[in-house]
Amino acid sequence: MTRLYERVALIGLGLIASSMAHGMRGRGLAGEIVGTARSPETRAIAAGDGLVDRVTETAAEAVQGADLVVLAAPVGVMGSIAEEIAPHLARGATVTDVGSVKRAVVTDVGPHIPDGVTFIPGHPLAGTEHSGPRSGFAELFENRWCLLLPDENTDPAALARLRQLWEALGSNVDLMDPDHHDLVLAVTSHTPHLIAYTMVGVADDLRRVTDSEVIKYSAAGFRDFTRIAASDPVMWRDVFLTNKDATLEILGRFTEELFALQRAIRTGDGAQLEAYFARTRAIRRGIIEAGQDTEAPDFGRGSVKR
Amino acid sequence: MTRLYERVALIGLGLIASSMAHGMRGRGLAGEIVGTARSPETRAIAAGDGLVDRVTETAAEAVQGADLVVLAAPVGVMGSIAEEIAPHLARGATVTDVGSVKRAVVTDVGPHIPDGVTFIPGHPLAGTEHSGPRSGFAELFENRWCLLLPDENTDPAALARLRQLWEALGSNVDLMDPDHHDLVLAVTSHTPHLIAYTMVGVADDLRRVTDSEVIKYSAAGFRDFTRIAASDPVMWRDVFLTNKDATLEILGRFTEELFALQRAIRTGDGAQLEAYFARTRAIRRGIIEAGQDTEAPDFGRGSVKR
Repeated sequence: MTRLYERVALIGLGLIASSMAHGMRGRGLAGEIVGTARSPETRAIAAGDGLVDRVTETAAEAVQGADLVVLAAPVGVMGSIAEEIAPHLARGATVTDVGSVKRAVVTDVGPHIPDGVTFIPGHPLAGTEHSGPRSGFAELFENRWCLLLPDENTDPAALARLRQLWEALGSNVDLMDPDHHDLVLAVTSHTPHLIAYTMVGVADDLRRVTDSEVIKYSAAGFRDFTRIAASDPVMWRDVFLTNKDATLEILGRFTEELFALQRAIRTGDGAQLEAYFARTRAIRRGIIEAGQDTEAPDFGRGSVKR
Repeated sequence: MTRLYERVALIGLGLIASSMAHGMRGRGLAGEIVGTARSPETRAIAAGDGLVDRVTETAAEAVQGADLVVLAAPVGVMGSIAEEIAPHLARGATVTDVGSVKRAVVTDVGPHIPDGVTFIPGHPLAGTEHSGPRSGFAELFENRWCLLLPDENTDPAALARLRQLWEALGSNVDLMDPDHHDLVLAVTSHTPHLIAYTMVGVADDLRRVTDSEVIKYSAAGFRDFTRIAASDPVMWRDVFLTNKDATLEILGRFTEELFALQRAIRTGDGAQLEAYFARTRAIRRGIIEAGQDTEAPDFGRGSVKR
């Protein structure tokens, strides 16, 4: 494939950045890939594994001469990284990010971006429950949506090139505005994660049901929640702190509905329960038809052998 | 393998019963397998596919001469089935069930069981989001737990034989009492299902986020909820109607915790959120080590191609 950028700087080397590194390298999309991370341990692993071409100690060093800078750190530190790298950004560079919340990133990062540099917020809707520099793989973005959030001043050529990068990594690209993004993701990601964390926490806390029982008998539904609740705690802390309004709005809707179903259980209203449970199948069908999940029973994982 | 029963009657021919049929047949565990279902369509499919050796129109016919009768219908109709088959049960037969709730089954079925017949409630903790006579497969029970719920009067020989059947189908067998079963399952299955149904219902209802957006961007977490929420509506209606107390208890704990996290989001208490999210990883590790889920990222489903 065509080389799209001469030097890409990855700020943060977790699941998303390491997957981008593998993907860009395998497809020859970048001349040089430079990476940095706040933790010395992560930097040492990345250097030892040869995850990127060059590991730097600071973000300021990493971005020097880069024509693409990818902020791939928790949303809560994006602003301070932007402040640190701003004086070192090359004229004509594009800065993007991969954070799960977008309004906060626009607010925190935007003001630091110097003239002559284009900032295009982004969010690849891809991930697994694993994290860290060794969790990445080149195929992570294949057939997944990546949202880009340009504004009316965004340089069209810079946007087209970034779009090409994500498409070359296998993604489908859509454009969206930050507030709508944050609401959509509150529905498709943030609230489900909070609920999963809560359910796993409840199970872990109960005195009358042991952890060993929860673990042995988890195949009845609970284990799916534990996968989601195994995601990176710091990343998720920042998601909820920075997408507060939309998450609280969707949580409010969720508890309202849950209370209605709880009342139906208490009063024995079988018709209401059955009607509610019947209508949710259509959306599953839509997801499978859109190629966003497998039709195979139980995600195709079958029986798990030791 | 050894033939364990001469004639097995399956009352209901959905996911569990059809999986039992495939499993028993492949392993030669039953001399003859007779099946029936309330819906003429299900009976026609089962007969046409040769799912069982013989399809009968009524449960009363099906159980004649059977040394094992498996009640595999929604929990809400178990009592009336027991009443119907009682006069036709062979002396020495064992009756079991596969319902997801056990106290209600003990109460509804127990009184109809005649002298000389042993009733041993059971619950294989296995399933997929699919249902119906064509959804079964022989491997469904492999490495899954099956709970049996004998009481102090249960014939030990009948229990040993039923245990052998489940073990021959690949399950691990544990014994439990009905009330504890219903509490454990409220945690590992019933409450998670209710929550998943609720979250999918909320997403489907929102005006400001379209169904098409929910479907396209579901890979960020939501799609896992839709799998659980695609399960059989009638089965789940009956679960909640018959395991009311334990479900309401666990739901109460769940909403209490959810409100505490919601408050932490509202007040910006990052430390509380991070601490909560960090402790839930251990239980996931336990589930993988116990062989109850795969360690592969994202359940190993990888990217989904059209």
